[in-house]
Amino acid sequence: MRDLAGRPELLALNTATLGHREPLAGVIDAVAAAGFGAIAPWRHDLDESQAAAEGKRIRDAGLKVSGYCRTAYLSAPDAAGRAAAVADNVRALHAAAELGAECFVAVVGGLAAGSRDCADSRKQILDGLAQLAETAAELKVPIALEPLHPAYAADRSLLCTTAQALQWCGQLDPDGRGDFGVCLDAYHVWWDPERAASIAAAKGRIMGYHVCDWLVPTRDILLDRGMPGDGVIDLRSLRAEVEAAGWDSWVEVEIFSAEDWWKRPKEEVLATCVERMTSLC
Amino acid sequence: MRDLAGRPELLALNTATLGHREPLAGVIDAVAAAGFGAIAPWRHDLDESQAAAEGKRIRDAGLKVSGYCRTAYLSAPDAAGRAAAVADNVRALHAAAELGAECFVAVVGGLAAGSRDCADSRKQILDGLAQLAETAAELKVPIALEPLHPAYAADRSLLCTTAQALQWCGQLDPDGRGDFGVCLDAYHVWWDPERAASIAAAKGRIMGYHVCDWLVPTRDILLDRGMPGDGVIDLRSLRAEVEAAGWDSWVEVEIFSAEDWWKRPKEEVLATCVERMTSLC
Repeated sequence: MRDLAGRPELLALNTATLGHREPLAGVIDAVAAAGFGAIAPWRHDLDESQAAAEGKRIRDAGLKVSGYCRTAYLSAPDAAGRAAAVADNVRALHAAAELGAECFVAVVGGLAAGSRDCADSRKQILDGLAQLAETAAELKVPIALEPLHPAYAADRSLLCTTAQALQWCGQLDPDGRGDFGVCLDAYHVWWDPERAASIAAAKGRIMGYHVCDWLVPTRDILLDRGMPGDGVIDLRSLRAEVEAAGWDSWVEVEIFSAEDWWKRPKEEVLATCVERMTSLC
Repeated sequence: MRDLAGRPELLALNTATLGHREPLAGVIDAVAAAGFGAIAPWRHDLDESQAAAEGKRIRDAGLKVSGYCRTAYLSAPDAAGRAAAVADNVRALHAAAELGAECFVAVVGGLAAGSRDCADSRKQILDGLAQLAETAAELKVPIALEPLHPAYAADRSLLCTTAQALQWCGQLDPDGRGDFGVCLDAYHVWWDPERAASIAAAKGRIMGYHVCDWLVPTRDILLDRGMPGDGVIDLRSLRAEVEAAGWDSWVEVEIFSAEDWWKRPKEEVLATCVERMTSLC
């Protein structure tokens, strides 16, 4: 397991951590100044028609792009909605390529609006992902399937566990070309009784590792995630498992915290992330 | 799959649905009058020293006791705390026997206070459950392990999936004597990508089937559960899976709804439960 002490360059900053309060251009220098080695922007942080210029700005600041967040949801009540989602995701893949992103993060969607049929919505999602495979391969931007905590199954992601993500990788990329992999987020996977085995099985498929913490109590299931160290996730053990499965790239901090960290100055947030991750987690 | 139309006697009412606003004695007649065939009380609904009398009162009203809720959490920071939980659960098993309960429902506990070690807390829980086996067998009150939604892993239950509950049953009751089984609750299991296979594998181990619904949005992860039919769970499909796995007893309605159903008159709540379950779910 790597020692992150004094090595903030092994960290990535997901811009959700700063609450999307200002455009990407405004945060790049602060992220670089705090010592991070990479940044992961969200689509709404930038004008995608300027993605190449934004990518250059990021590189000029000495940063890499650990990932680009995220897919439009792929389940929808009708074929037109599903086709629109695929088309939107193709556009995002092109932007991800222009940014120089290591991967495009897939948050796949929950139940199609009006549906109670998990199996059908999962099939829609898999169909949509399959339609992105060719673009991902052409652009050399792999798609990182991120299982989300089952608390989001209804409205954000019917991809709920690491094991399920690996099964989907096998279906979408049976030859292991690497166009699909998994993004593991501590918040989403920590509770899983099959966690250790699933992460070990992800060897060679891991494309991202995100961290924040699970607060007790959790006041809001979406927007009350904790700064690493403030909650109950065994982040060091989890990182050990992920690194034992071959992950040797950035540890990405992604914190949704509407009532706490999103209200603090970005410099304080960034410094705290670095301090916690290089000393504690 | 059974047709519940006109058969409210196949329903059980878990008293949590009424918000624990009055002692058990006050709700028994209303539950019977609404047509339910069984009731599932919680420990704090009654004076356990009077459990035999309460059991008689329930029988005299023409009801059975589908289950008794629920175990004290079995994880704790020290051995004294764990021993106290076991002793408390032994007392509850005696009360369950006096009530005539079909099972004692186990909500096993989350991380021990101050711990981030899921494996260690799970071991504590399994050790505690094993210590209850003899009493459960003597009293002929089996323990129904209820996997809870992973949203509760930190503070309520590190037993998170049906598959995990079955694995624990195998460890606790390797010879299939029936002292341990599983209680399936729609709210907790609906999202599981392994749902169908796990429920099929539960054949012969199912000791309870609870229903409520998952609302979108969910305003409070503990206390904003929905009346069946008001949310996104495919309750008919789920019941079909549970019944295909051999379950032929009560469908128990258990709704935690602090801001909605708990504020309505109990007669309205009970009538709505019966109407929904006998027509829709």
